[in-house]
Amino acid sequence: MAEAIKGPLDGLRVIDLTRVLSGPFCTMILGDLGADVIKIEPPKGDPVRAQGTMTEGHSGYFAGFNRNKRSVVLDLYSDAGKAVLRRLLAEADVLVENFRPGTLDKLGLGEAAVKELNPRLIVASINGYGSTGPYKDRPAFDFIAQAMSGFMGVNGEADGPPMRAAPPVSDLVAGIYAALGILASVIGRERTGQGQTVEVAMVNGLLSLMAYLSSEYFATHKVPARTGNDHPLVYPYGLFTCSDGQIAVANSHDQILTRFLDTLDLGWVMSDPRYDSNPKRMAAREELRDLINGRMAGKSQEHWLGILNKAGVPCGIVQDLAQVFSDPQIKAQEMVLQAPWQDGPSQPVLGFPVKLGSTPCAIHQPVPQLGGGTEQVLAEFGFGSEEIRQLVEQGVAGSR
Amino acid sequence: MAEAIKGPLDGLRVIDLTRVLSGPFCTMILGDLGADVIKIEPPKGDPVRAQGTMTEGHSGYFAGFNRNKRSVVLDLYSDAGKAVLRRLLAEADVLVENFRPGTLDKLGLGEAAVKELNPRLIVASINGYGSTGPYKDRPAFDFIAQAMSGFMGVNGEADGPPMRAAPPVSDLVAGIYAALGILASVIGRERTGQGQTVEVAMVNGLLSLMAYLSSEYFATHKVPARTGNDHPLVYPYGLFTCSDGQIAVANSHDQILTRFLDTLDLGWVMSDPRYDSNPKRMAAREELRDLINGRMAGKSQEHWLGILNKAGVPCGIVQDLAQVFSDPQIKAQEMVLQAPWQDGPSQPVLGFPVKLGSTPCAIHQPVPQLGGGTEQVLAEFGFGSEEIRQLVEQGVAGSR
Repeated sequence: MAEAIKGPLDGLRVIDLTRVLSGPFCTMILGDLGADVIKIEPPKGDPVRAQGTMTEGHSGYFAGFNRNKRSVVLDLYSDAGKAVLRRLLAEADVLVENFRPGTLDKLGLGEAAVKELNPRLIVASINGYGSTGPYKDRPAFDFIAQAMSGFMGVNGEADGPPMRAAPPVSDLVAGIYAALGILASVIGRERTGQGQTVEVAMVNGLLSLMAYLSSEYFATHKVPARTGNDHPLVYPYGLFTCSDGQIAVANSHDQILTRFLDTLDLGWVMSDPRYDSNPKRMAAREELRDLINGRMAGKSQEHWLGILNKAGVPCGIVQDLAQVFSDPQIKAQEMVLQAPWQDGPSQPVLGFPVKLGSTPCAIHQPVPQLGGGTEQVLAEFGFGSEEIRQLVEQGVAGSR
Repeated sequence: MAEAIKGPLDGLRVIDLTRVLSGPFCTMILGDLGADVIKIEPPKGDPVRAQGTMTEGHSGYFAGFNRNKRSVVLDLYSDAGKAVLRRLLAEADVLVENFRPGTLDKLGLGEAAVKELNPRLIVASINGYGSTGPYKDRPAFDFIAQAMSGFMGVNGEADGPPMRAAPPVSDLVAGIYAALGILASVIGRERTGQGQTVEVAMVNGLLSLMAYLSSEYFATHKVPARTGNDHPLVYPYGLFTCSDGQIAVANSHDQILTRFLDTLDLGWVMSDPRYDSNPKRMAAREELRDLINGRMAGKSQEHWLGILNKAGVPCGIVQDLAQVFSDPQIKAQEMVLQAPWQDGPSQPVLGFPVKLGSTPCAIHQPVPQLGGGTEQVLAEFGFGSEEIRQLVEQGVAGSR
């Protein structure tokens, strides 16, 4: 007991065929939790290695999605490369891929073949729409998944267009769900002795976040209206203007609203016959907004955040990324880390959203250089040094 | 082997003290995967039972977050209620809560006490900002987490305000991450023999989705501009107008753009000296938009979606929820299910985003009526029938 381990997933071997975004996010999460993630890259590497702003020749975008992995270059177009992959998979726990549906079959890794090779292997796939159904062969992209899932349609101003979220939320949510499905399958394998397939579609993942918007639609058959930053049913709620900028205030029910108005010395509003019910306040939005802004204008964001939070009113500022990364709470939560590159500089990356008490997430592997783990990994999987030399010489495997 | 099991988490006992949104979403995911989720409710129940549009007296909002759970009513303000909870926890695998930090301590369930009671127990907490740091005591709410995490700040039109997403994404992402941290800890426990704490903050979870926006900020120290539905770096990309509505097109690189323009008989654009580089196309956005819209206007969305998807151009429509739920792909993926209420009607709920091949997610427990599982669960945990009767009589436990 209490031996030093890398994280709760220490010892879990993950063969990672993914590239770009959703898949690498999934496998980074597994790596952060201690899994041994082996990123198989084509000789030219994951295209993200060449994307985004470079610092000393290193992509911060790549670093942000690929710490805690080792890189093995394999030419999977060659039969010899496929054979190497099969030897890795025979001793691995998990395979993750984000190709279009059908690609694994073309690699000779269809479900039946995998079962024969390694019945304990868990095979996780991330794709746009799912591998069955009329759209299974459609090309996927985050912007399209946001549109098709209903997510874009509910976001934006009441009189404006539907609005996407700028971060690629459909990719990332699918990546988290895939990691979750993999871990559930690892647990299930203890019981069944068998691996299984795990599939997450970007559209389905984002649709699963439609929450009460979907339950209201099911109950009423009314499509929810866009309401910008305002709450569809409650006022006052939203953005208000202090002397030096806006603050966001979430007066989600009357008890909180009372605290909010009391703090502003506007407690009388709740018993004023013009405003003494939520429907009246919704109807008098503009008057109330002016009243509140008039009171807030005299003091700073910091002033109001201090006393409103103390009073139990959920509030904050709309932070830009410069503010986020200098925020004392974000720092206290260690949400920015320095990730070292293998034989290279360190770059800032986002920290771990899951905080574990005893076996915390950590950076236990640097961001890999392309092929920087080829020889080490192949040796660990039982390849002899002469064999490795030949594979590299033939261009089947690539080493730095 | 191959015994019938409810899902990969069959046998995992989860004591669920959560209410409203983030926590219930987390435990529903665990229940969907086969865990035995025991929802402990105060005598008045989770407030969501009374929220949203009611159908035959049943809240669809509650159904959407609480299938696959059993409900036990316990008065945790009473010492006897706390004692019952302790007996449940002594034999459980997981405790999940989404109180403000410090509440577990007040319930006598601080870290040391839990360790003594059941060292194998995994204790998961979801909160707004984390349980350490200067904002740990601030009240949390999705709208505020969206603002503070930087998420709102990057969304919206270039000349418009920052824009929240309408779904409560910070709650839901935190819920998924908490489920993930719990499963990782279950796996780690096989090695260590010990439970541990799992904590996810809504702000941290949403910040983890800032992806390349954060890596670009780290590399350039420039705050990313809002760009609405347009790609910040590539044109043509975004929404275009057909005869019967808009379609979203993601021409993310030149190869796809060429396919797109060829399909529109606008292949000449790529070699026209006015438009033959992406910077030129960015500068000539308005001209190109008119050109493309002019071509698209003659045919329907369905026409363009058919031939563009076939050509490998990621595209789709901005679906509202009515369209989403009648979409043949969403139906093929079974993303709407009927969840039965315990002794009540069935209601439509969202389906499972994680598709497992051998031990799929399923609805194996109805949406519970308040206290509908009290007697059954207490009996399973070793309470005698006379003891249960007394607890109910004293108002410590509540039964339907």
